[in-house]
Amino acid sequence: MLSTHGQDKKGFDFLDDQKALDEIFRMSLTESSAYPWLESMCLDIGHRLSGSPQAAEAVDYSFKLMTELGLEAQKQPVMVPHWVRGEKEVAFIQSSDGTKQEVQILALGGSVATSEEGFMAEVVEVETWEDLEALGREKLEGKIVFFNERMNPENIYTFHSYGHCVKHRWAGAVQASKYGAAGAIVRSLNLRIDKFPHTGSMTYDDALDSIPAAAISTADAETISALLEAGSKVEMMWKQSCATYPDVQSYNVIGEIKGSEFPDEIILLGGHLDSWDVGHGAHDDGAGVMQSLGVLELIKKLEYKPKRTIRVVFFMNEENGLRGATEYAAQSKLQSLNHVACIESDRGGFTPRGFHVEGNEALVQKILAFKPALEKYGVSQLEEGGSGADIGPLKTEDNVLIGFVPDSQRYFDYHHSPSDTFDAVNKRELELGVASMTALVYLMDKYGL
Amino acid sequence: MLSTHGQDKKGFDFLDDQKALDEIFRMSLTESSAYPWLESMCLDIGHRLSGSPQAAEAVDYSFKLMTELGLEAQKQPVMVPHWVRGEKEVAFIQSSDGTKQEVQILALGGSVATSEEGFMAEVVEVETWEDLEALGREKLEGKIVFFNERMNPENIYTFHSYGHCVKHRWAGAVQASKYGAAGAIVRSLNLRIDKFPHTGSMTYDDALDSIPAAAISTADAETISALLEAGSKVEMMWKQSCATYPDVQSYNVIGEIKGSEFPDEIILLGGHLDSWDVGHGAHDDGAGVMQSLGVLELIKKLEYKPKRTIRVVFFMNEENGLRGATEYAAQSKLQSLNHVACIESDRGGFTPRGFHVEGNEALVQKILAFKPALEKYGVSQLEEGGSGADIGPLKTEDNVLIGFVPDSQRYFDYHHSPSDTFDAVNKRELELGVASMTALVYLMDKYGL
Repeated sequence: MLSTHGQDKKGFDFLDDQKALDEIFRMSLTESSAYPWLESMCLDIGHRLSGSPQAAEAVDYSFKLMTELGLEAQKQPVMVPHWVRGEKEVAFIQSSDGTKQEVQILALGGSVATSEEGFMAEVVEVETWEDLEALGREKLEGKIVFFNERMNPENIYTFHSYGHCVKHRWAGAVQASKYGAAGAIVRSLNLRIDKFPHTGSMTYDDALDSIPAAAISTADAETISALLEAGSKVEMMWKQSCATYPDVQSYNVIGEIKGSEFPDEIILLGGHLDSWDVGHGAHDDGAGVMQSLGVLELIKKLEYKPKRTIRVVFFMNEENGLRGATEYAAQSKLQSLNHVACIESDRGGFTPRGFHVEGNEALVQKILAFKPALEKYGVSQLEEGGSGADIGPLKTEDNVLIGFVPDSQRYFDYHHSPSDTFDAVNKRELELGVASMTALVYLMDKYGL
Repeated sequence: MLSTHGQDKKGFDFLDDQKALDEIFRMSLTESSAYPWLESMCLDIGHRLSGSPQAAEAVDYSFKLMTELGLEAQKQPVMVPHWVRGEKEVAFIQSSDGTKQEVQILALGGSVATSEEGFMAEVVEVETWEDLEALGREKLEGKIVFFNERMNPENIYTFHSYGHCVKHRWAGAVQASKYGAAGAIVRSLNLRIDKFPHTGSMTYDDALDSIPAAAISTADAETISALLEAGSKVEMMWKQSCATYPDVQSYNVIGEIKGSEFPDEIILLGGHLDSWDVGHGAHDDGAGVMQSLGVLELIKKLEYKPKRTIRVVFFMNEENGLRGATEYAAQSKLQSLNHVACIESDRGGFTPRGFHVEGNEALVQKILAFKPALEKYGVSQLEEGGSGADIGPLKTEDNVLIGFVPDSQRYFDYHHSPSDTFDAVNKRELELGVASMTALVYLMDKYGL
């Protein structure tokens, strides 16, 4: 049982803190339910794209978990997009010498279908928007534009490389359509060469033709690029049958432990319940929601009575719309909720490295000052930086937003792909994340914000 | 190209250091050969138990790599044990109700065989040496002693838990033999429940009967324990055909870049070339040797001219004899070699966390003071601690021994098991290890020891 103090302390009491944090880490590594919860969601339900039956099942499962944990739980309604992949995509390439080979693609989320029988067109490789402009309509009309920017291996923090490339996935179809292209193929956003594609979200511009868009595996991207480099013409046959249906009713799932002294001050933990429709959505973001709920479980098991309200939110539809986060922020404003601090876990269930903190400068400095208490546990990278998509809309001038930062090296090996399965998550790494977030919540609750 | 200075600097020059270290990390993530070297050793040669044909192939391959890199390379002869597993082990258990089920075992390295047809005996579970004593000869004679101590999940650094349990694997057969047991089965040293056994080294006492010893998968250990807990008698049928043959000629493989100013001061990097005879020995310790060689490659690519001699040693026979390390230390003594610092990489090819440092106290403090220069790269856990088995014999009063510390959470999932394969190693994590070790070598060479 962890002690709680009647008032916020003025200085730090690191000896006492270290005892508490030791106990948090010990208990997380021995008694957390985060891993079996994730196992059940991944293996019994599976992936959970917004609007799918599995997403609905996951909402019920989450609400049940929160209720069983004794939290005040609620389902917050939100309408979400309903895009369906349809039949497995079919694609092959044909080079100048007539050789055909299958390539692995996944329609991007939100993409239109090709015609029913598919189509064949020449592939033109580009790396930047400027390449498109240089080639112009003359060389792009009716072609398949192949965006092949490689993620930069030089950044140690892999999300920096992702941030640089993701515009091609998001807006490649729009830019290619400007020049009359027939479709846009995007190199999967992964630093390694693998054989399966990594999907993700995209957009269209109403003023332009909506052309099909898909991700291609990095291995196939290398193959096509090598053929073109060698002077071959490359044509691609491409068929996908995805479609967008009317919005569907779904929910954010919310649970909380009321604060004993400052119940109106909310410390929020969250991640997103939805996932892409391949793999299990285990790292992205099954790990994040179960870690967030794991914090509340740990607080209960430790018999710690928080002074502030500790709330967990499983956001719906982060992947292709952010509708859950938008609705949650709108409802919070209507109810004048005061989120003093929000922590998002949405960078995989890997071994913890630290936290990225943004918002009110005084509070940011207060969080960064916790570093000496956390580094013993390997949680040493407390830095200013972006927090997360789902908590972003909750930013005010007075609060602080925090992104939990696990090790980033393997994340894009799994991200948005069939390989993001439960067995890719290590139990201890997941539990260390629960402990790290609990430790930060404990310190914030103890010392106030 | 990194600058080298005519003399050791008095203070630190962190701005200059950071530029150099940035370049080291950048180059390692873009140009290191450590990953393809490891791939070739794992996929073209495979596992490399001392005395095996593959170990001999790996010696030749290593010597070739070093020579091609332009190092002064040599093969240092050493006689090594030659133990052979023979046919795949066979084991099943039978409970009181007559139900039989197969269990997965691996003979421990150095174990004797069972009789040719195998044997069946009752299984008695123990957790400690004291349990053996309490049961006594009466209850253990002719039985199979089953050492089932679970690794403690509470330690964040998993090697601490390993250190506590490994005595049962090493000396379980000796202790059980004291009470007339027919064999010793040891729970695999892994924190998770998996279905394959993890082997390792063991010993016998000449004054006692040498009884067969094997590791059993954690999943099967749990099954047997549950049956016994439920009151069932458990008998095990067990057959293994391993044997020890006369010692075989093998080699340590050594390469170096001579120092420009202090050639007699050696900074050594190393790991072990041999592995167990299952999986690929990818993390243990293919990663470590290729990282060590990767440091010398990077130094060459960076056109850095070290003031001190930078030497890499691929030690033979760490797993079941430490003969290579022993011979290397003996030869070094004969030649009065001065190893001012030794770095060992033998804890897997995972994302770097820091270094454990031991030895001359002034030098230890000097190494720990590099922390501010390294933590930007996630290499922040510079702590006093044990270094490694192969460099241990090189300890003097004047030098410093350093263990490279990657993240430890997943290590025992692979350790000494069929799952320690090349695909379990992440390219970037391996390369970050190369960079971390190169950075430390750069700082030690620049500021002197």
